Amino acid sequence: MTDWGLVDPGAADASGTDDDAVLAAMVEVERALLLGWASELDEFLEAQADALDPGALDRHALLAGVQHDGVPVVALVPLLRAQLEAAGLASERLHLGATSQDVVDTALMLVARDALVASRASLVEAGRRLAMLAHAARQSPRIARSLARHGEASTLGVLAAGWLDGVSSAITTIHATAFPVQFGGAVGTGAAADAAAGRPGAADDVRSALAARLGLADPGRAWHTERTPVIAVASSAATAVAALGRMAGDATFLSREEIGEVRLASAGGSSAMPHKRNPVDAVAITAAAVEAPVLLEVIASAAVAGDERSAGRWHAEWAALRRLVRLARSASGAAARLLDGLDFDADRAAAILDAAGSAGARPDVEVLAAASDRIVDRAIARFTRLTDSEVTR
Amino acid sequence: MTDWGLVDPGAADASGTDDDAVLAAMVEVERALLLGWASELDEFLEAQADALDPGALDRHALLAGVQHDGVPVVALVPLLRAQLEAAGLASERLHLGATSQDVVDTALMLVARDALVASRASLVEAGRRLAMLAHAARQSPRIARSLARHGEASTLGVLAAGWLDGVSSAITTIHATAFPVQFGGAVGTGAAADAAAGRPGAADDVRSALAARLGLADPGRAWHTERTPVIAVASSAATAVAALGRMAGDATFLSREEIGEVRLASAGGSSAMPHKRNPVDAVAITAAAVEAPVLLEVIASAAVAGDERSAGRWHAEWAALRRLVRLARSASGAAARLLDGLDFDADRAAAILDAAGSAGARPDVEVLAAASDRIVDRAIARFTRLTDSEVTR
Amino acid sequence: MTDWGLVDPGAADASGTDDDAVLAAMVEVERALLLGWASELDEFLEAQADALDPGALDRHALLAGVQHDGVPVVALVPLLRAQLEAAGLASERLHLGATSQDVVDTALMLVARDALVASRASLVEAGRRLAMLAHAARQSPRIARSLARHGEASTLGVLAAGWLDGVSSAITTIHATAFPVQFGGAVGTGAAADAAAGRPGAADDVRSALAARLGLADPGRAWHTERTPVIAVASSAATAVAALGRMAGDATFLSREEIGEVRLASAGGSSAMPHKRNPVDAVAITAAAVEAPVLLEVIASAAVAGDERSAGRWHAEWAALRRLVRLARSASGAAARLLDGLDFDADRAAAILDAAGSAGARPDVEVLAAASDRIVDRAIARFTRLTDSEVTR
Amino acid sequence: MTDWGLVDPGAADASGTDDDAVLAAMVEVERALLLGWASELDEFLEAQADALDPGALDRHALLAGVQHDGVPVVALVPLLRAQLEAAGLASERLHLGATSQDVVDTALMLVARDALVASRASLVEAGRRLAMLAHAARQSPRIARSLARHGEASTLGVLAAGWLDGVSSAITTIHATAFPVQFGGAVGTGAAADAAAGRPGAADDVRSALAARLGLADPGRAWHTERTPVIAVASSAATAVAALGRMAGDATFLSREEIGEVRLASAGGSSAMPHKRNPVDAVAITAAAVEAPVLLEVIASAAVAGDERSAGRWHAEWAALRRLVRLARSASGAAARLLDGLDFDADRAAAILDAAGSAGARPDVEVLAAASDRIVDRAIARFTRLTDSEVTR
Repeated sequence: MTDWGLVDPGAADASGTDDDAVLAAMVEVERALLLGWASELDEFLEAQADALDPGALDRHALLAGVQHDGVPVVALVPLLRAQLEAAGLASERLHLGATSQDVVDTALMLVARDALVASRASLVEAGRRLAMLAHAARQSPRIARSLARHGEASTLGVLAAGWLDGVSSAITTIHATAFPVQFGGAVGTGAAADAAAGRPGAADDVRSALAARLGLADPGRAWHTERTPVIAVASSAATAVAALGRMAGDATFLSREEIGEVRLASAGGSSAMPHKRNPVDAVAITAAAVEAPVLLEVIASAAVAGDERSAGRWHAEWAALRRLVRLARSASGAAARLLDGLDFDADRAAAILDAAGSAGARPDVEVLAAASDRIVDRAIARFTRLTDSEVTR
Repeated sequence: MTDWGLVDPGAADASGTDDDAVLAAMVEVERALLLGWASELDEFLEAQADALDPGALDRHALLAGVQHDGVPVVALVPLLRAQLEAAGLASERLHLGATSQDVVDTALMLVARDALVASRASLVEAGRRLAMLAHAARQSPRIARSLARHGEASTLGVLAAGWLDGVSSAITTIHATAFPVQFGGAVGTGAAADAAAGRPGAADDVRSALAARLGLADPGRAWHTERTPVIAVASSAATAVAALGRMAGDATFLSREEIGEVRLASAGGSSAMPHKRNPVDAVAITAAAVEAPVLLEVIASAAVAGDERSAGRWHAEWAALRRLVRLARSASGAAARLLDGLDFDADRAAAILDAAGSAGARPDVEVLAAASDRIVDRAIARFTRLTDSEVTR
Repeated sequence: MTDWGLVDPGAADASGTDDDAVLAAMVEVERALLLGWASELDEFLEAQADALDPGALDRHALLAGVQHDGVPVVALVPLLRAQLEAAGLASERLHLGATSQDVVDTALMLVARDALVASRASLVEAGRRLAMLAHAARQSPRIARSLARHGEASTLGVLAAGWLDGVSSAITTIHATAFPVQFGGAVGTGAAADAAAGRPGAADDVRSALAARLGLADPGRAWHTERTPVIAVASSAATAVAALGRMAGDATFLSREEIGEVRLASAGGSSAMPHKRNPVDAVAITAAAVEAPVLLEVIASAAVAGDERSAGRWHAEWAALRRLVRLARSASGAAARLLDGLDFDADRAAAILDAAGSAGARPDVEVLAAASDRIVDRAIARFTRLTDSEVTR
Repeated sequence: MTDWGLVDPGAADASGTDDDAVLAAMVEVERALLLGWASELDEFLEAQADALDPGALDRHALLAGVQHDGVPVVALVPLLRAQLEAAGLASERLHLGATSQDVVDTALMLVARDALVASRASLVEAGRRLAMLAHAARQSPRIARSLARHGEASTLGVLAAGWLDGVSSAITTIHATAFPVQFGGAVGTGAAADAAAGRPGAADDVRSALAARLGLADPGRAWHTERTPVIAVASSAATAVAALGRMAGDATFLSREEIGEVRLASAGGSSAMPHKRNPVDAVAITAAAVEAPVLLEVIASAAVAGDERSAGRWHAEWAALRRLVRLARSASGAAARLLDGLDFDADRAAAILDAAGSAGARPDVEVLAAASDRIVDRAIARFTRLTDSEVTR
């Protein structure tokens, strides 16, 4: 199988989430585990860790392993042992006390964390642009719409502040998300690790070391079938996509020829209509926003996991989680691009408002001006607090 | 329309979430808003607040209003004004500065908060029982299963501790959930409230007063189309249902005649097989767990809201959010009942483990015993911390 | 529990699908089963069938039964027996050879069939109006839009023909949908019925008689855990809602103040903006269209049913199927109303096209005119064939 | 991006659905369109059709096109023109009268058709094995289970017949599915094709020719935003996966060590427990069955398409439809493998039934034997009719 992006505009940025990245993350987990054992056993295992090379692994063998075992790790471990042995290194410490799920779950958490960190960076970039737009347009009146009808006057600044609020909410959610390490061995008790170390509690210490090395959270327990941590990560990614999807939908509508309150620079072509300039970034975000909620749903369904490792639901989670964080990263990047080329047309907004004028009651101009000031200031202040805290964290 | 529960075992406990409860919450919002204005305007409006009576409202007129206006509040406000006027009270302060969405969103947040508070109480009850079960069975060996096959030895205590971890995770998620008030007027700027009060910033103060009176969070902004707060509430409810669904699935399986590691007291009858004793509470939780993820998905999809009030997506959110918190409350109550009548059969678990003995490597008995102790202790300690913090919060 | 429609504009028409209707359908199934046995056993059971009265049943007892047994039929059967005994009639033939699932599944198929028949009637009404609109506007030029941008010229007739195609597709799908009876006894073998009749094959004949009496299809088998028939019904309902949702979305957009190609008569009010006229029917259809796909998904998920009756997934199916056909009926009625008050503004459409003129290549006017004629004629002919066949079927 | 299957056991068979296959299908559409024009224009375009080579296309340029234009066809057409020009052939007939959507929609229908044809072949193979199993075990008694509890006696033959019914239902659904060609030009009117041919109706004839050449259905219209045909294809694929998912779930459970009514040959390994033999095919089918319903849901949601080409929802449909038919194909192949190595253990089934004997009423042995005969015969006859009709179709 090779899917390289031909029919996937909503997930165009697969950097850090493609299969090679997931494989690299799996090897990173095995490497960190070796180093965790080095401390526990007081051995030198740095050379072993260094010798593991995801790039040199046989993809066909791994894929055959997925088809034979239902999980890539059963085939991965002997391939990695072979790398060690080829380098003249002992391989018995590799994967010690671990099971396939430890590697898959932890690797996917690494991938998810990196994708959401990248997403956050794009969200911050998008937020900075929105703060500028909101500030500049705080006194530009426009008609607000409810139920697809003209409502009352608002401002373009309030519009941008509302989008910025969504970005800030997404950043807040990502900040609050824990990405836990998984290490429990065959059935989650850590007994194999304790036995290997010859002391009770060793599994806990190896898990903590693994978390520290990988920059993941130590959950203090195994969560092999207690999948609420996965729901939390998925919910965070879906929240970001939803906030961006709403902005993209507004931008798509407001940049229509008949509206024109928004102008978009980014534009794709058409195979039949050379004159067209399509809102490609907004379209890609919208496509992602159609799909992200159902991936969240797969994760929440799969969390009803049976036994000490579920027979199928766990397996359904992998592709869904990976794709969901890919959508979050991809949509965030598209949003930053979209906003980089987005401008308001204050004159057009004012003209529409004037044309709508007789339709209904209008708030007093000074009251609206003051309200807009406060709303914009508050949205910018909220975003700035989040950004500042980020700088120092 | 009247749905009174005939075909809804997964949502059997509709207390606090049925239409009368939602209507009462809407009236509670109008009442608190009157009192908020009383402070702002320095008027006496307590009599007006007291005169509002949800029980006396004409349901048919409200239902006709839903069908005519797409939202019940347009019909509700004149009905409430009529109550005031019938009591000889002035009605012009009612709904002042508010729009339908302020009332619907805030009322649904009240309903959601109460449902999740009730859910949490049942989760705590379930957790206490699980803590007892885990402690008592910490040294009762059993076979753990992965991919529907015998894996390695674990204990019944570890099993119960894993369920308890899910309950603790659900409680943690509910604790972290904000239920924000909504107050922004026609298009979210608060301009009408500012104008009514004759001073800038009045809308903010009325919103804060409303939040304080209703015991909701003050989000510092309107979120009429920035729906990430709704995703957070929905995610919290879905997390609770998923954690319980996993436990119910395990209990259903483990109480099968061929397994018997778990015994269930609760039991429903059969219209064709009088001898049967069906695991009704577990079945109801499982039904809820099939549905809850899709309601979360509706919420996440509906969050891609257009304009300053979306034409349909907002409306799709109401029934979904209400039903999702109903499922959470209903499943939590069923879980407490289920666990109240759930016992482990340690002898049966040991017999299965013995029969499985030759299948594979077995962890050392003492290693497992020590690991089980730690896992159970940690799960109980986590739950206890949450429960204690609850007492003082 | 009582949900009477307060927060459910997307499902405003619950006629034929509320709990009383489902209960009446259950009793209708028991009644038809009695009469089926009358033929099989050569007994007079008409008096028994007549004596069953859904209106007189104790709803609280049934609701308590749902909570105790997880299914209403266990409590229903003794209540019905009591009705027979109170009338001095023998009750031992009631529910003979049947199990709860036979009654629930068949009753829900009755409810689904009636809802989709009602939906089809509204679709036909909507289609007639669309055929008129399409014919009248076949030579009214407008700009077609792709990716939210002006594309090339088309006509209002082609627009209406496209909506009509959706209506015809929905009608076609409903025509092709089988609503099967369920009758298999405790575990689907029909053994109890065969034994009661004292001859092999009796269960098959009773099932056929049941189907004939209820106007349902005889599937020639039990489908207690082979749930593909339910997916087919659900898919049919969801197809109708999707086709209508697309039309409602277009109508909502095209009736915006800045566009104005479509004028809507139906209009709801606003609690904050008295001047507003909201597109309530289109909003209700859109809300239904947000939700219907996830109900289809619940049905498809629940079809992965375990054992000879699944422990929870079957139960999740009831409310989802009922609600999905309710949405289809409700949305179809709203569509007929919407279209009854929908008109095109040909002048406005022409003006927008003129303003867009320089944007790109325009098809030759005569070529477009001829193409529009053919497209409209074909859409009307397709709808007429479906309608005619309906008259004679 | 490259996803090559590392974390995707539920979709392990991507043959015919990977990006190269989709690209080949797109080129096949352009090729057939050239030949369709050859007839219409009475020109020789065979050389041009032959010169198009999907294998030689620059994937990076296509991927960049997706990111720039939101659709691969805008970049594809000039690449194909360059192939023609490099071969010294005129290129102006390429893509004549077509738009991107014509190519994407038709190509995805080709891919879907081929995947469901392949799926059907595996379903027939699975059905043959099930017919054998059902026939052989028609008199092997077992306990049937409802709500996870022992119900009444049935037979292993009835069990297999029920699975076979699901397979027959899936085949029936696939047989009834139309895979329509799409050809409407920029906004669906066919005006560009009519103009190019210099006669009205040319677009219709080219569309018919295209359908005939590709072996797709001619829908008699464009369905660019009337997406009910896509729902039908998706529903068909999801139905197949659901029927297989149910069988896989039963097989997973019945092959557990404590049950043992089913024995599975196919078995994957474990990285931590070398003794384990995991039911890998059943697990993969289950994973597919968790995901397929949500893809159906994406398709049904995306069908609420706006304008004459929707801005995002259409784009979300591509990956979902492709993945859904991939899951159907992959799950069908896994089911054939699973069944090839699946056997019943009649002794074990009889022993469980005996042990359950005192639990409740048991049907008379002769009654059950006769009922089992009829159920098995009927299921086999239904499957055979479908298979025969296939041979001659």
